[in-house]
Amino acid sequence: MSEEVKLHGTWPSVFSYRVIWALKLKGIGYDFVEEDLSNKSALLLHYNPIHKKIPVLVNAGKSICESMIIIEYIEEMWPHTPNLLPTDPYDRTISRFWVKFAEDKGLAVWRMFRTTGKELEMAIKESLEMLQIVEEHGLGDKKYFNGEKIGMVDIAFGSILYWFGVNEDVLGVRLLESHKFPRLHKWFQFFLEEPVIKENLPDRDKMTVFFKRRRETLQASA
Amino acid sequence: MSEEVKLHGTWPSVFSYRVIWALKLKGIGYDFVEEDLSNKSALLLHYNPIHKKIPVLVNAGKSICESMIIIEYIEEMWPHTPNLLPTDPYDRTISRFWVKFAEDKGLAVWRMFRTTGKELEMAIKESLEMLQIVEEHGLGDKKYFNGEKIGMVDIAFGSILYWFGVNEDVLGVRLLESHKFPRLHKWFQFFLEEPVIKENLPDRDKMTVFFKRRRETLQASA
Repeated sequence: MSEEVKLHGTWPSVFSYRVIWALKLKGIGYDFVEEDLSNKSALLLHYNPIHKKIPVLVNAGKSICESMIIIEYIEEMWPHTPNLLPTDPYDRTISRFWVKFAEDKGLAVWRMFRTTGKELEMAIKESLEMLQIVEEHGLGDKKYFNGEKIGMVDIAFGSILYWFGVNEDVLGVRLLESHKFPRLHKWFQFFLEEPVIKENLPDRDKMTVFFKRRRETLQASA
Repeated sequence: MSEEVKLHGTWPSVFSYRVIWALKLKGIGYDFVEEDLSNKSALLLHYNPIHKKIPVLVNAGKSICESMIIIEYIEEMWPHTPNLLPTDPYDRTISRFWVKFAEDKGLAVWRMFRTTGKELEMAIKESLEMLQIVEEHGLGDKKYFNGEKIGMVDIAFGSILYWFGVNEDVLGVRLLESHKFPRLHKWFQFFLEEPVIKENLPDRDKMTVFFKRRRETLQASA
C-alpha cells in the first residue's frame, strides 16, 4: 500500500503526459489525480511547495516534482526495459544535454501561447530556431534520439511538438511545415504511432478549445 | 593518451569552476584550455556547435557540454567517493530538483550583471527570491545540501553565490545580508572553507575589475 504511485496532473497538460508516457512505457500502475489549477489542492501545495505546479509524482508517500526529473526517477526506481535513458554514460550525457535543451528552449512555445504582437513574433522565432537546431543536430538518420527505441529525449520533444501544434491551432497559423523540417516531421510521425503514445494523448480539438478560451481570458486580463 | 581529460573554460567563469571543483574533489587529472570568448577557437565551436559556450569537458576525444551535465558525467564515469550525488534514488531526485532550480532561477543573477534600471531591479528581486527559497527550503539544519559532505547542489549554488558577490561589488551594493539569510550565510562559509574550493577560486578583486569593464562595454554598446 505504501508503495502506491499517484500522479497529480491536469488533462490538457503535455507535461503531465510526459510522466504518463513514461509510466505506461514501463508498465507501472498508478492513480491519476486531476488537479484544478484555478483552485490548487492543499495536497498539491504540500507536495510541491516551491513551484506549486503539476505534474507531481507521489511514490510511497514521497513527492517528486518537475516532469523530466520524475522520468529520471522512474528510470532509476524501475530500471527494467524499456530503458528511457541509454546505458552508456556518454550516451546518457547526450540525452541529458537534449533534455536540458528542450527544457530551456521549450519555454518559447509556452510564451507563444501567452503573448501577442512583438513578443509573440519573438516567441515564434525562438521556437522555430529551437526546432531547427533539433532538425540539424538531434536526430541524424536515427528513428529516435537514441536509436531504434523511444526514450527520454523523445518524450521531452514529443510533448513540445504536440503543444506547438495546439498553439498553431489556437493562433490559426501553420508554422512547422514538413518540407522545412523533414527529419523532425518523420520522427514525430513515428512517435505518434507508438502504441503507448497513440493511446495516451489529450484530445487535440478539446485542447484547442480549452487553450483558446484561456488565451482570451489572459488577453482580457492583460 | 586517448583517455586524457581536457577542460575548456575561462578564468573568470564560475561555470568553469563548477567543473574544476568536481574534477578536483574526485582527484581527476586534467588539462585546462583557456578560451577567449571574444575570439572563439575552432575547437570550441567544434566541441559545442549548438551553444558555442564554455565549459566543455573533453574525455577520450568526446565532448560534454553544460556545467551541471558535465558533473553528472564525472560522477558516472568516476563513481568512487566522494560522491557528488547521493546514492539513494529519492535523494538523487531531490538533488536534481535543486540543480534544476539553480540552473533556471540562477539566470536572474546573470541578468543582474547585464541590465540597468527597471530590468536590474527586477533581476535583483528575482535573485533574492531565489536565495530566500533556498534559505527556507534547501538546507534545514544540514551542513551541506545532502548532509555532511559537499555535493552537486553545493557546487551549483556555491558558484551562484560567488557570482552574486562579484555582482554586488560591480554594482556597489550589499544585498545578501547575513541576518536575513543566516542558513545560506553559514553554509557558504563552510563551502568556502573546503580545501578544494578555497584553493580553486578565481580572484574576486580581479573578477570585479574584469566584470566592471565588461559591464561598461555592454552599456556603451546598448
